[in-house]
Amino acid sequence: MADNTTLGIPALVQTEGIHGLRVGNATIFNSPIGYACSWHPALIEQMGAVIALESSAFGVNQLYAPLGDLARELRYGRVEETFGEDGFLAGEIGYAYIKGLQGGNVSATVKHFAAPASPEQGLNTGPVHGGERELRTTYLPPFKRQIIDAGAYSVMSAYLSYDGVPAIANHHILTDILRTEWGYNYWVTSDSGATNRLCEAFKMCQADPLDMEAVTMFALPAGNDVELGTRSPSYTKIPSLVKSGKLNIKIVDTAVSRILRAKFALGLFENPYMGSADQISLVVHAPEHVALARKIDTESIVLLENHHQILPLSKTVKVAVIGPMAHGYMNYGDYVAKGAQTYGGTTSLEGIRAASKGSVTYAKGCERWSNDESGFAEAVATASAADVAVVVVGTWSRDQVELWAGFNATTGEHIDVSSLNLVGAMPRLVKAIIDTGKPTVVVFSSGKPITEPWISKNASALVQQFYPSEQGGNALADILFGNANPSGKLSVGFPYDVGTTLIYYDYLNTGRGVGVGSGMAYPNGTLQFGDEYVLNSPLSLYEFGYGKSYSTFIYSNLNLSKTIASTSDTINATVQITNNSSRDGAEVVQLYVQDLIASLSVPNIALKGFSKVMVAAGETEIVSIAFKVEDLGLWDINMKYVVEPGDFLIIVGSSSADLRVNSTLTVN
Amino acid sequence: MADNTTLGIPALVQTEGIHGLRVGNATIFNSPIGYACSWHPALIEQMGAVIALESSAFGVNQLYAPLGDLARELRYGRVEETFGEDGFLAGEIGYAYIKGLQGGNVSATVKHFAAPASPEQGLNTGPVHGGERELRTTYLPPFKRQIIDAGAYSVMSAYLSYDGVPAIANHHILTDILRTEWGYNYWVTSDSGATNRLCEAFKMCQADPLDMEAVTMFALPAGNDVELGTRSPSYTKIPSLVKSGKLNIKIVDTAVSRILRAKFALGLFENPYMGSADQISLVVHAPEHVALARKIDTESIVLLENHHQILPLSKTVKVAVIGPMAHGYMNYGDYVAKGAQTYGGTTSLEGIRAASKGSVTYAKGCERWSNDESGFAEAVATASAADVAVVVVGTWSRDQVELWAGFNATTGEHIDVSSLNLVGAMPRLVKAIIDTGKPTVVVFSSGKPITEPWISKNASALVQQFYPSEQGGNALADILFGNANPSGKLSVGFPYDVGTTLIYYDYLNTGRGVGVGSGMAYPNGTLQFGDEYVLNSPLSLYEFGYGKSYSTFIYSNLNLSKTIASTSDTINATVQITNNSSRDGAEVVQLYVQDLIASLSVPNIALKGFSKVMVAAGETEIVSIAFKVEDLGLWDINMKYVVEPGDFLIIVGSSSADLRVNSTLTVN
Repeated sequence: MADNTTLGIPALVQTEGIHGLRVGNATIFNSPIGYACSWHPALIEQMGAVIALESSAFGVNQLYAPLGDLARELRYGRVEETFGEDGFLAGEIGYAYIKGLQGGNVSATVKHFAAPASPEQGLNTGPVHGGERELRTTYLPPFKRQIIDAGAYSVMSAYLSYDGVPAIANHHILTDILRTEWGYNYWVTSDSGATNRLCEAFKMCQADPLDMEAVTMFALPAGNDVELGTRSPSYTKIPSLVKSGKLNIKIVDTAVSRILRAKFALGLFENPYMGSADQISLVVHAPEHVALARKIDTESIVLLENHHQILPLSKTVKVAVIGPMAHGYMNYGDYVAKGAQTYGGTTSLEGIRAASKGSVTYAKGCERWSNDESGFAEAVATASAADVAVVVVGTWSRDQVELWAGFNATTGEHIDVSSLNLVGAMPRLVKAIIDTGKPTVVVFSSGKPITEPWISKNASALVQQFYPSEQGGNALADILFGNANPSGKLSVGFPYDVGTTLIYYDYLNTGRGVGVGSGMAYPNGTLQFGDEYVLNSPLSLYEFGYGKSYSTFIYSNLNLSKTIASTSDTINATVQITNNSSRDGAEVVQLYVQDLIASLSVPNIALKGFSKVMVAAGETEIVSIAFKVEDLGLWDINMKYVVEPGDFLIIVGSSSADLRVNSTLTVN
Repeated sequence: MADNTTLGIPALVQTEGIHGLRVGNATIFNSPIGYACSWHPALIEQMGAVIALESSAFGVNQLYAPLGDLARELRYGRVEETFGEDGFLAGEIGYAYIKGLQGGNVSATVKHFAAPASPEQGLNTGPVHGGERELRTTYLPPFKRQIIDAGAYSVMSAYLSYDGVPAIANHHILTDILRTEWGYNYWVTSDSGATNRLCEAFKMCQADPLDMEAVTMFALPAGNDVELGTRSPSYTKIPSLVKSGKLNIKIVDTAVSRILRAKFALGLFENPYMGSADQISLVVHAPEHVALARKIDTESIVLLENHHQILPLSKTVKVAVIGPMAHGYMNYGDYVAKGAQTYGGTTSLEGIRAASKGSVTYAKGCERWSNDESGFAEAVATASAADVAVVVVGTWSRDQVELWAGFNATTGEHIDVSSLNLVGAMPRLVKAIIDTGKPTVVVFSSGKPITEPWISKNASALVQQFYPSEQGGNALADILFGNANPSGKLSVGFPYDVGTTLIYYDYLNTGRGVGVGSGMAYPNGTLQFGDEYVLNSPLSLYEFGYGKSYSTFIYSNLNLSKTIASTSDTINATVQITNNSSRDGAEVVQLYVQDLIASLSVPNIALKGFSKVMVAAGETEIVSIAFKVEDLGLWDINMKYVVEPGDFLIIVGSSSADLRVNSTLTVN
């Protein structure tokens, strides 16, 4: 495997790009799991283009983004970096990001191939359990969409094992599938430290110095072309390995050719030096970029509860903003530049102050990392003196420097949790504010689902804002005061408790719902016994695709362009969406497919299309969603991809559980 | 597939055999996950022989036991029916059971083949995620040991799916592996309802009446020979399917021949009618059978904590027995006959009363299914008036009739949980008794691990008794008062919380322990932040193989018969065990192997042998454990079983984490 900086001029200049750039004063967008909630690929493509512009100004021509990983295991610290639990949505959002980014001649790096985000115990480097069918049915499709359809110029191999094979040494995935089946011609880099990990943790090598040889002998032939920075790089062994005949020079040549191909495609040989101080001052943090960050953030916020239509708030009410995440720092995820959380950015408090025409007060209430309740009294007094309280609590991360230095955090790379509850005094702070009797809007500012179902019942409203952009406070205020109508839909389901995971909507047939019924432990102490589970529900509290609007939408007149089709057909589904409210709003119309008879167990339903549509108050729009019959297949008993003849239910709805209209498609 | 009752005389007369027999007044033994904690195959073989004797007296010649399933997913309701989390132990215990049972001409039925007990979300019928390597590395070995080595006369196919393939339709497992690779010649039955489930839940068939044909067409050719009772049996379709040419009569003939082969082997053609009233009165519940139940139960109890050597108790102390599981019913698992929990059997209270030479008082404290604390005052007063309190709490099940009628329960088939904590008022009852200041011995009477780590710290002693035999109370008293020295070792690890599962000891390399360190939430409110996990530990609270004794044992002088070996060698490991206490005791000496270099990810350590040895006070015994080098292999990248040359660490210890002595074996 090669060190990419030594091969050819010009160099690829790389950085992370999860929330935007990790350098300088670049515009910070909201987290991937957040902006996936916009279900708005056109906006994400614009974002990719903006990131490319700003990157180029800094001289950066490759980002280590996006992820094809799926947020199936919610304890995992990197949930915030994914596009959620579903491969179709992750494929579409990633496709748009890559098209935007690479349209600006900045290379994407699709990672981590494949397939993490479901590690055992949710631990960062834990092994992934799964078979070839699950790999192909669930994990690979978003990667194929991002890598092949979007034409990503590079891929990063994963650092976990799948069914016992370390991803970095997985010739089947990196070569048989990626190169031979998919025809990918650009380059694959190992993840940072993953080559060493072959030795240290996977226990695949002898001790130094032999180990570095062994690493090269495993990782390069499996299909890695470049070794990302490690403590003791093994690529230095290549010359001696070739000389001794242990390594075929053709393998090295192939790796080099793949990197050069990407550099040619990026235009680096014509225009190697993109960055300049002039460009930085011209494009970085341009007003239209900041406006885009705010727009995406606003469309990404998900309204979970709105009892008695407490939202939107009148701009003249007295608002008490409460909570350790409402002000004092920006609650970004981990892939931001050093110090980013404490400079720039609009906090929730600042956003609410800017939008309000009444008085806005603030009390922190508690620290996010403590059980200390000494600030509760002030918070309760502040809430009591206002008309409405907005309490911002959730999870938090750190910039990469602080994160790896061991500062406290509850999400981020290598920061895994055993509970999805709020930490420390935060849940009690929420309860104390609710107990004041003032209308209380709770905002979850987080990188992953939080499991406090009692808040859903007892708060006046509940708003989910995944890690925000630098405009997060303004975006939140836009939603709270009704400058914008909520249109975000969850990219990941919320369980009732960590003990009820895995909670994704597309479980295989026979998952869930076979037993007598769920039980429940009521707050008053009453125990209602069920069986699956005895005292809980295996269903989601908020399902994938869920999200409320200030408008209400009626679905009607689902029509398929064909009801009897062959496998080469594309079906166009049209449906009427009526906004029967007095407020303009956008709805994400979701198309799911249920395979009614199959030769083995398949996902009970699967997303195959969606469209976000603006519908004016009282108006009706016809939404059209196309899907290919060839995408309705399964991996059969012989691991061949086939579309099995028979009936498929085509279901259109407002979420994966709120299924409104359906029609049957017969495939010959 | 055939209905076994229509094929040939004599008939196979079948019942369940999890805790003994499910009929009449048969001796009830403790639960499989419990008796696996004895690590004493010779006793289990005796138990199998006793069950065969009693079965035969009733005219029963086939039991639906034992399980080859592994308790990897602790939320699953059937954990109590397994032999724990490890395939080697489950293989040895199951082997002994089958040898005893079939030595008495009663057929075992090894189930559920393969591989459940790891269903998604822990739900009874949930799909199992896993690949071919995990199947072969982890799940199949205990089945092969039970089915092939022990020569089981029948097998039951599983009712779940593995990597998307319903087990009942899995030709690869039921035919390629079981018949072709392993050479199995007896019969396979589907599980009850599993054929219907192909239609109803797996969605593999059209609606009635076509479905029954489709079921037969899937299940019989896959390798099932018999259909267990279902609501609408599909085997009735066989004649018309054969007639129409859709089903080859040879498949039917093969199925019939396999059943007849088992009947011949059992001697049913020579001696078809085994049961008689005389036999029943002669053998059922014979005093030596009851004594065996007590002995096994005693050897199965695991001493988890014994602060300040509070145990064993003096027989003259005043004992307050507390708790809803201490008396009033027998806390058996679910596979017992109707009403068994309320007739016969010795409760904890009764056993303690029988063994004590002081006063024994009792207060229930609370119901096991309620949050009502109105009985606490009496319980606290009772404890306060005694010298020591014994509090019995845990999980519970029901007999099969009550269970399926929906009576409350927290374990058993289809009774799955999302939490491993004590239910209702029980944990608060424990705390109230501990808070009296009286020495408090807590007994977990349960079918699976319980996660209340604070009890481990705050109780004076903690005793684990998995669902007991009918002699459970006497067995417990034997341990508490020192008539017996605890020698049970956990057959399954205990996590700190459901949120930290999966917790088995033989996780693959790169599982656990890679991060900075675990965090902790202290009872006083202090939060100590870690990373994996943020506020918990991914390690087990009590690991597989763990269990205390009233004696202490020193391990020394590990010696291998060879330190350089070939794959055809058998290695004999000897180790000296010294009892440096003043009390005779038994120790389970455990041999684990660590593969120091491998071509892919393998279990970090794996049990390959064990021996339970009695060592008199102050004495030293030499324990000998043999293992075959051919059993140290892995399933390589091409899914071929190979023993890779190189070094293996041979580790002997008192548990999977308490590893005392080791030596290196080099395989050429």
